[in-house]
Amino acid sequence: MSLTKATLQAGMLSRFHRSVGQVSRGVVAAATCSLTATATTPGPRFSTAAPLKMNVPQPECLQKPLNVPSKLLMGPGPSNSPLRVHYAMMKPLLGHLHPEFTQIMDEVKEGLRYIFQTKAEVVCCVSGTGHAGMETTMCNLLEPGDVILIAQNGIWGERAADMARRHDADVRIIDKPGDTFTLEELDAALAQHKPAVLFMVQGESSTGVLQPLEGAGALCRKHGALLAVDCVASLGGVPFYMDGWDIDVVYTGTQKVISAPPSMAPIAFNDRAMAKVRSRKTPIRSFYSDMTWLANYWGCDGTPRKYHHTGPISAVYALREALAIVCEEGLESLWSRHKACAKKLHEGLGALGLEMYVSDPNKRTPTVSTIRVPEGVDWTRVTKYFMSNYLVEISGGLGPSAGKVWRVGLMGYNCTPENVDLVLRIMKEALADATGKSQKSKI
Amino acid sequence: MSLTKATLQAGMLSRFHRSVGQVSRGVVAAATCSLTATATTPGPRFSTAAPLKMNVPQPECLQKPLNVPSKLLMGPGPSNSPLRVHYAMMKPLLGHLHPEFTQIMDEVKEGLRYIFQTKAEVVCCVSGTGHAGMETTMCNLLEPGDVILIAQNGIWGERAADMARRHDADVRIIDKPGDTFTLEELDAALAQHKPAVLFMVQGESSTGVLQPLEGAGALCRKHGALLAVDCVASLGGVPFYMDGWDIDVVYTGTQKVISAPPSMAPIAFNDRAMAKVRSRKTPIRSFYSDMTWLANYWGCDGTPRKYHHTGPISAVYALREALAIVCEEGLESLWSRHKACAKKLHEGLGALGLEMYVSDPNKRTPTVSTIRVPEGVDWTRVTKYFMSNYLVEISGGLGPSAGKVWRVGLMGYNCTPENVDLVLRIMKEALADATGKSQKSKI
Repeated sequence: MSLTKATLQAGMLSRFHRSVGQVSRGVVAAATCSLTATATTPGPRFSTAAPLKMNVPQPECLQKPLNVPSKLLMGPGPSNSPLRVHYAMMKPLLGHLHPEFTQIMDEVKEGLRYIFQTKAEVVCCVSGTGHAGMETTMCNLLEPGDVILIAQNGIWGERAADMARRHDADVRIIDKPGDTFTLEELDAALAQHKPAVLFMVQGESSTGVLQPLEGAGALCRKHGALLAVDCVASLGGVPFYMDGWDIDVVYTGTQKVISAPPSMAPIAFNDRAMAKVRSRKTPIRSFYSDMTWLANYWGCDGTPRKYHHTGPISAVYALREALAIVCEEGLESLWSRHKACAKKLHEGLGALGLEMYVSDPNKRTPTVSTIRVPEGVDWTRVTKYFMSNYLVEISGGLGPSAGKVWRVGLMGYNCTPENVDLVLRIMKEALADATGKSQKSKI
Repeated sequence: MSLTKATLQAGMLSRFHRSVGQVSRGVVAAATCSLTATATTPGPRFSTAAPLKMNVPQPECLQKPLNVPSKLLMGPGPSNSPLRVHYAMMKPLLGHLHPEFTQIMDEVKEGLRYIFQTKAEVVCCVSGTGHAGMETTMCNLLEPGDVILIAQNGIWGERAADMARRHDADVRIIDKPGDTFTLEELDAALAQHKPAVLFMVQGESSTGVLQPLEGAGALCRKHGALLAVDCVASLGGVPFYMDGWDIDVVYTGTQKVISAPPSMAPIAFNDRAMAKVRSRKTPIRSFYSDMTWLANYWGCDGTPRKYHHTGPISAVYALREALAIVCEEGLESLWSRHKACAKKLHEGLGALGLEMYVSDPNKRTPTVSTIRVPEGVDWTRVTKYFMSNYLVEISGGLGPSAGKVWRVGLMGYNCTPENVDLVLRIMKEALADATGKSQKSKI
C-alpha cells in the first residue's frame, strides 16, 4: 500500500502509535538475545511496556504568531541590519561542506581580510557571538600558568580576565576605567609582568573609550608577548590595521558596524599566534573553538577541509552580504561616516547642555557615545521615553559606567546623519520630560 | 553646517581623510600630556604619522551577487527549513534583553520543554551549533579527574571522548560500533567504572543506530552517575522523555528534525545536573557555556536576567517558528511520520537489492538510514549522480561507516513520502549508472 502525505495526515495516528510500541518491544528482544552467559540471571532489561504518556502538552504560547516590533536600535548593539542582509537568510540552506557553501566561506574570509586589513592565512569565524571570539582567543593562546596582561578600561577587560582565570592563566591587570593607556604605560607594564599575551580593547563600549593601538604591537614584539585585541564595538567604525599595527589576534562581532545579525565572531590569528597555538604543551580546552580545527574547516591551512562542526549556514550568508556592503562603500568612507556622525552627535548633545563621559574628544570611539546623566535626572525615564514614544533604543551604562551614562550607538547601517538628528530631537524632548517631572516632584 | 547623507555620499572623502589624520595626532597629544615624570626621557609614543595606507583592497569576489542553488538536503543534516522559518529571520532585530525578545526566548523554552518532554527549569540554548551543546555538557559536568563513561557506537562517542579529555576527565569507553548497548552491559560497565557521568547517543548519525534509553537513567541513579544524552540526530523523530526516562542532561541541534537553520544547541539540565554544576570545586572552564550564566540569561533561575552574551536574535526567531510548527503537528504524529517514512524507504531500498548497514530494523534510527554500498560500486559516483542530476544530497559514511555506506536523512520538514519516492527513484537510476559504468570498465 502506498503511503501518501494525505493518508499520513488523515488520522492514521492510532496505527502509528501501535507501531511505535512495537519498536520498543522489538528493541528489547534484540537487546536480550545478544546476551548468552547472563541470560539465566535476569538483569535489567529495556522495558516491554507501551511508550510513556506525554506529561508536557503543547505550549499555548506557540499558537500565537511571532510578533516583533520594528525598533531603531541606537544602543551599543546589536544595530539594525539592512533588508538585503535579511534577504540573504531567505536563501535555501546548503550542506556545511558543499562546494557552493565553502566558496561563500572563502568570500567571507576575503571580506574579513579587508576589514581587518590583514593578509594572515588564518581568518575565519567562531560559530558563536562576540563573547565566543573572546573565549576562543583565551583558550587557544593561554596555557595554565601563562601570564596575561589585561589593559582594562571597562567591562570587557573584566570579562577577559574572568575567562583567562578559567583557563588557569596568571592574570595581571592594569586598570584605567574610562581612559586610555599610553605606550609608556604599556611598555612599563610589559617590562614588569613579562606576559605571554597582552590583551587590549580598541572600542570599550561600556565607557565609550577608543584605545589607540599603533605602536603597541611593536612593544609586544620587543617584550616577547603576543598582542590580542577586542574590536567588537569598533571594527569598521575606526581605522584598524592588523598587519600594519603588528596585531597578532583580533576578533569582532557581526552585529555592530558590520550590521549583520548577532551570530558569529570573525577572528584572525597571524603566524606568530598560530605558532604559539601549534606549539602548546597542553591541549586546547575547547574542541569547538580549537583554532587548528577552525582554520582547517575555513580552508586556511592548505589541507582539505575536514568535518569539524556544522557551521551556521544562514548566518554565513548574512555576514557575506553585510561584508559585501562594507566593501562596496569602502573602509575609508565608512570610517569617515562614523567620525562625522559622532562629531555631529556630540556637538548636538553639547547644545542640549549635556556632557560626554569621555571628556577628551580624541579618546572617544565614534561607535558608542557615552553621555553623562545630569544630576537629578532619572536615566531610566529618558531611555523609556525613547522607547515608548519612538521605539528607539538608547541604553544605560554597563560595568563602570552603570547608572552614570546613556550610551548611544552609531554603527554601520544605523550610522546616518538622519538618525543623529532623530536621537537629538528625542533627547531634547526626553530631557524636558524628565526635568519637568523632577521639578514637579519638588513642589 | 548641517551634515546630510547626501553630502556624505557626494565626495567629501578628502576632507574626512584629513580629519582621520587629525584624530590620530590628537590621541598622541592626549596620551603624552598625561605623562609628567617621564616626559623628559622620551619613551615610546603613539605615532604622529598620517594613517597607514591600506594594503588589502576590496576583494573582487564580493562584487558578485550571493548565488545559492536550491537543493533538497536528504543527507544527515542540515535538512531544509520551511519558508515560514526563513521568513521569521526577516523580522527586524531586537536587543538581546528587550522584553519582546525575552518573551520569545520564553516561548522557545516552552517549545523545548515539550520536545524534550521535561518540566526541568534549566532549559535553554547554547549560542552555537550541535557540537557546542556537547562541549557545554562536558565542560559543565566534568571536573579534572572525574570519570566519564562513554557508550560509544559511532563517531559522536569519539568526539565526546575528545572533548572530555580536553577537560582532564578520566575517560572510559565501551565500544560497540554500529550496534546498541543492552541494559546489562550498561549496568556492568557502570559497576566497573563508577563514573560521575554516563554519556550516550540516542541517534548515531554516523552508523544509523538508535540506542534505546529507557531504564538507563534508573541504572545511573543506582550507581550514582548522571546520564547525559546526545539527541542531535534523533530528537523529534523518535520518542524521547527526559523526565520519564530519568535523563539528567540532553542537548540537540536546530538543523535536524526541528528544521531550523543550524545555529543553536537546545539543551536541558535537570535539578540533579544543576546540583553537580553548582557544587563544583573548580570553575567551569568556559564563560560562554557556563550553565549558571546561561540559565540566568534564559530566565531559568528565578533571578532577574543579567547580561551574559548577545544572543543570536534572528536564529532565536527561526527556532521559535520551527518549534511552533512541531507543536502544531504534535510529537506523536511527528514520531509516526518518521517511522512510516523510514519503513517505506527501507522497503524500497530492499526492493532495489540494497542492504541496510544496521541489519536489525529495530536498531535503526528512522532519521538517518545507513545503506551498505554494494561491492564493486563506487559510492561517490552515486552521491554525485544525485547531486548533479537532481540537486539532491545524500551523503557517504562518517567515522566507522566511512566508505561503507550511504546515509539518507529523513528529518522534519524533509521527511515526507514524496521525498522517499524521489530518493528511491534517483537511487535506482544512480545504481544503474554506477553498475553500468563499472561493467564497462571491466571490458
